[in-house]
Amino acid sequence: MADDGYANHEAVAKILPSGTKVFALPPLPPQGKADAWLEKSAGVFSEAFETAMNWHEKRIQALQKLPGEALEKIWWPFTQHATVEPDTVTVIDGRYGEDFEIYDQEKGRDGAIDLRFDGAASWWTQGVSAELQQELNSAAANAAGRYGHVMFPENVHQPSMDATNALLEGPGKGWGSRVFYSDNGSTATEVGLKMAFRKYYVDAGLVSKDGHQRAKDLINDGSCHLPQLRIIALDGSYHGDTLGAMDMQSPSVFTGPMQTPWYQPRGLFLQPPSLAIRNGEWTVALPPHGLLNDGEDRLFHDGKDLESNTTWKSKADAFDIGKRLDSPLANEYRQAVDKALERAEQDAKAGHMGPVGALMMEPVLHGAGGMVLIDPLFQNILMKVCRERKIPIVLDEVFAGIWRLGTEGAWEIIGEKPDISCYAKLLTGGLMPMSATVATADVFDVFYGPGKAQGLLHGHSYTAYPIGCAVASKALSLYKDPAKNPNLIVDASSKGDTPTAYLRELWDESKLKEISNKSSVRRVFGQGCVLAVELEVEGEGGYSSNAAKEVVLRLRPHSVQARPLGNVVYLMCAPTTPKATCDRLLNVLAEELSE
Amino acid sequence: MADDGYANHEAVAKILPSGTKVFALPPLPPQGKADAWLEKSAGVFSEAFETAMNWHEKRIQALQKLPGEALEKIWWPFTQHATVEPDTVTVIDGRYGEDFEIYDQEKGRDGAIDLRFDGAASWWTQGVSAELQQELNSAAANAAGRYGHVMFPENVHQPSMDATNALLEGPGKGWGSRVFYSDNGSTATEVGLKMAFRKYYVDAGLVSKDGHQRAKDLINDGSCHLPQLRIIALDGSYHGDTLGAMDMQSPSVFTGPMQTPWYQPRGLFLQPPSLAIRNGEWTVALPPHGLLNDGEDRLFHDGKDLESNTTWKSKADAFDIGKRLDSPLANEYRQAVDKALERAEQDAKAGHMGPVGALMMEPVLHGAGGMVLIDPLFQNILMKVCRERKIPIVLDEVFAGIWRLGTEGAWEIIGEKPDISCYAKLLTGGLMPMSATVATADVFDVFYGPGKAQGLLHGHSYTAYPIGCAVASKALSLYKDPAKNPNLIVDASSKGDTPTAYLRELWDESKLKEISNKSSVRRVFGQGCVLAVELEVEGEGGYSSNAAKEVVLRLRPHSVQARPLGNVVYLMCAPTTPKATCDRLLNVLAEELSE
Repeated sequence: MADDGYANHEAVAKILPSGTKVFALPPLPPQGKADAWLEKSAGVFSEAFETAMNWHEKRIQALQKLPGEALEKIWWPFTQHATVEPDTVTVIDGRYGEDFEIYDQEKGRDGAIDLRFDGAASWWTQGVSAELQQELNSAAANAAGRYGHVMFPENVHQPSMDATNALLEGPGKGWGSRVFYSDNGSTATEVGLKMAFRKYYVDAGLVSKDGHQRAKDLINDGSCHLPQLRIIALDGSYHGDTLGAMDMQSPSVFTGPMQTPWYQPRGLFLQPPSLAIRNGEWTVALPPHGLLNDGEDRLFHDGKDLESNTTWKSKADAFDIGKRLDSPLANEYRQAVDKALERAEQDAKAGHMGPVGALMMEPVLHGAGGMVLIDPLFQNILMKVCRERKIPIVLDEVFAGIWRLGTEGAWEIIGEKPDISCYAKLLTGGLMPMSATVATADVFDVFYGPGKAQGLLHGHSYTAYPIGCAVASKALSLYKDPAKNPNLIVDASSKGDTPTAYLRELWDESKLKEISNKSSVRRVFGQGCVLAVELEVEGEGGYSSNAAKEVVLRLRPHSVQARPLGNVVYLMCAPTTPKATCDRLLNVLAEELSE
Repeated sequence: MADDGYANHEAVAKILPSGTKVFALPPLPPQGKADAWLEKSAGVFSEAFETAMNWHEKRIQALQKLPGEALEKIWWPFTQHATVEPDTVTVIDGRYGEDFEIYDQEKGRDGAIDLRFDGAASWWTQGVSAELQQELNSAAANAAGRYGHVMFPENVHQPSMDATNALLEGPGKGWGSRVFYSDNGSTATEVGLKMAFRKYYVDAGLVSKDGHQRAKDLINDGSCHLPQLRIIALDGSYHGDTLGAMDMQSPSVFTGPMQTPWYQPRGLFLQPPSLAIRNGEWTVALPPHGLLNDGEDRLFHDGKDLESNTTWKSKADAFDIGKRLDSPLANEYRQAVDKALERAEQDAKAGHMGPVGALMMEPVLHGAGGMVLIDPLFQNILMKVCRERKIPIVLDEVFAGIWRLGTEGAWEIIGEKPDISCYAKLLTGGLMPMSATVATADVFDVFYGPGKAQGLLHGHSYTAYPIGCAVASKALSLYKDPAKNPNLIVDASSKGDTPTAYLRELWDESKLKEISNKSSVRRVFGQGCVLAVELEVEGEGGYSSNAAKEVVLRLRPHSVQARPLGNVVYLMCAPTTPKATCDRLLNVLAEELSE
């Protein structure tokens, strides 16, 4: 500050956070007298420079300490600490747009900060590119200052209403009627399960619709007579790491008692047909041993018409559900699903198993399960059959929803609406945790009754916290604002069940096909914000494979920080990432994949 | 802005968020010429006034719409919607320090905003009083701008290290060595359980210490031979609403299939002795049918020495664990606990039940279970016995920890250290969700080995998000900064196991005793930030009782917004709330409780 004799700099220093340095320069000189002024000010300038350099020195020292300190005190998720060395810890000093600012331990002091594209898009949460991040931050700061947190039951605040409207007019459009908030995807799916099972009990006549009498009896009576329910789920799906969410998964390396106490597989797990570009063509891979993996219901076991039903030259054809619904494959799907559910019903009648009380499914893409696109035609038919049989449908859109796959609701790709769906990750644009379970009016209705015990007695302290809600409503509006999102295509003429807005294709299809023809590549796809390449390895691959690690390391010099997923290399962008960025990523990846 | 002919106002308007109005006044007049200037400016002033009034009008209209809209679209936690009417929805327009700013629907337009003390301290999360909230908000805004979110596994950023250090030097001091982050208390306790069970398997020799070979066999072999474990827990405790956390609870109105699919009570549930002021004296109430509720292990069943062991004139005596450890009651506790655990071991040997693999317990205070103080002497002895028997100890300090009860770690009141403890709520000072599971080096050690499958394969996308971490480290530092927290008492002379810092008593003890003598009151206590009064009702009371609702409504005209908990009225402040505020709250409550 210029010291005009009022000692303003001292007054200002007092109200700034302690430790903030304020420098006072002599009063500014008249024109032409700069030399003397500069001479007089030299001491202040060098003090300021020294202060800045000291600050920088401390910053570098702090960054240098971080890897060792982290290895000593932090317990990372999903990490075997014995395999992490100080020089493999990534020290992140900040984020600039879609790039990490990484302190490069090898380079040392000079030019120590590296920019690298965050290829795991901060583990599947990042919603907006550089310019729009400030808008989310402002929304957060505004809500923090005005509301802090206010408890939610029977209360309402504007951000909660804004987020609710954005969800119901967004991914919930056309089916959703109520929003229940919690903190992460895992809790959102558990809430979804609670909703679905209650709906099943009422629809199956086990609890009366207005419910009071019967429900009260059941609750006051310790030995409840309602049957234990199970779910239909897809093999390879992932719904979160809480114990209940793990019970929704099929058995795997993650479900033994070493990892997951009390695990019981609670599902009838179907083997889903998957979709990808293989050797230049979009191809459906059918489960080799049938839906139930028992060899009995092999699809197209006579091989007839197999190729014309399962390969397409273009993505548009592969995803044209309307057209494919008339195909022989659709018929095969329906028969196999019907048969599986029929058998489940017989098992329930015979008392071997509980009835199926919900379908719980990730739409279109299994993320944590290894980046596997599920044939949307199969999911369409599975949803239809469940609806016919009064099995409530829960979609877990935590990963796939909110523009991840190019449409606001991932269910839009399938062309069938859920009864309940779960949202998180992109919901808050990549700033902070929050999740929502959206439900239809019919689902809500079975919890509406005279008794408190009939309500949904679930909650978390920070439910619908104003900061999270304000950021969510802002993020949802940015994604679909044509003035803000360069990727948005609005089709005003669209009506009925086809999406009115979607993202342009971000990954060049001919380039994807080219990659798929490499001998090192098993399959590839680009869908919405996700580009994934499964590498050819001996055996099955999967989570324990290290094949992708090598490719990931080769991407580093291109300023791309990716994270391997078994033998899959993937790159993820935000719904608003410029196409040019995706072109660069795709080219770099193609270059580094060997023939 | 003054329009000095440069049209600065137009330039400024362009960079402000769209919709922001900028008014340009004529250049400011020289001294003595104000009249003409004001006349010339009148149009601008009235336009500004009109704009402000329009804005206010819209704000009121928006507030008026909220209750109806909320009832139509929001699904509240723990709420039976059928019992909520538009005029019972609380419309919150903001927070001013510890007060809600409530739009009073009855008062209408004028003076429509009411300030009311947030007596549920926003459902048990609020950490700081008015002046300090801005410091938390600044920490949040700073981290949002610099980091946004960055994925956590094998990465480190300064806020994550700051929060980790604050936890290890705070509630984890003297025992904690590692911090694992998740999003809420429910996930924190499930993570704690996973840690404890693994520790048990290794300590019991079921998995070898370096673990690789044996662990690998077990995991690759689908039919795992590790026994299913159960826990020891206290009846009436609460560990969150996820399905796994619910399995840690004893059966209740919340655990039937109407609420909690797949529920199985997984604990050996002990009936804990409780502590409160009853009729003017601090009194321990022993479980009438013994620890196991089977009438066999009744404590002091011969009545000998009962009164002198279970009543005290002062709080200091009741909480003097060191002294009470020599008492006959301590001996009774030990025998009863030993007997219960002995029986559990026999059951495990006989194969009736799985072995006990963890103690899971809320220290000192059951919050959601009805605001029940547990005798800390009992918990001290239970922890000691578990340690002797190599049962890992998990404390759920989500509610009780971080100064809630007057000490940074709630375990400090008990005087025994846990192996694992869970923190949330106050951790982020009342702004946003985050939780931490802190563990000893010994616990971490059993997850450290050559194989990925031996790591803790649990995680959430927003794990250790920078904003949450920055706010947590700031909040933890504010609580124990004597310059910021007026309630802090630092005892420099303290050493060994007694706390070096604690909060002054916020609730006047003589007033509490006076309240306890009222005929309408069953028990009362003030501990740390919590004041609780259980009302005399017919029968047991509990969550379904409506007795407290009436008292809560009588507090409204005193500008206090409380939330009933069955037949308990409680008020909660922040660790930094001025004593004068607590005096006022206590007096108001005393006044409104009938004789």
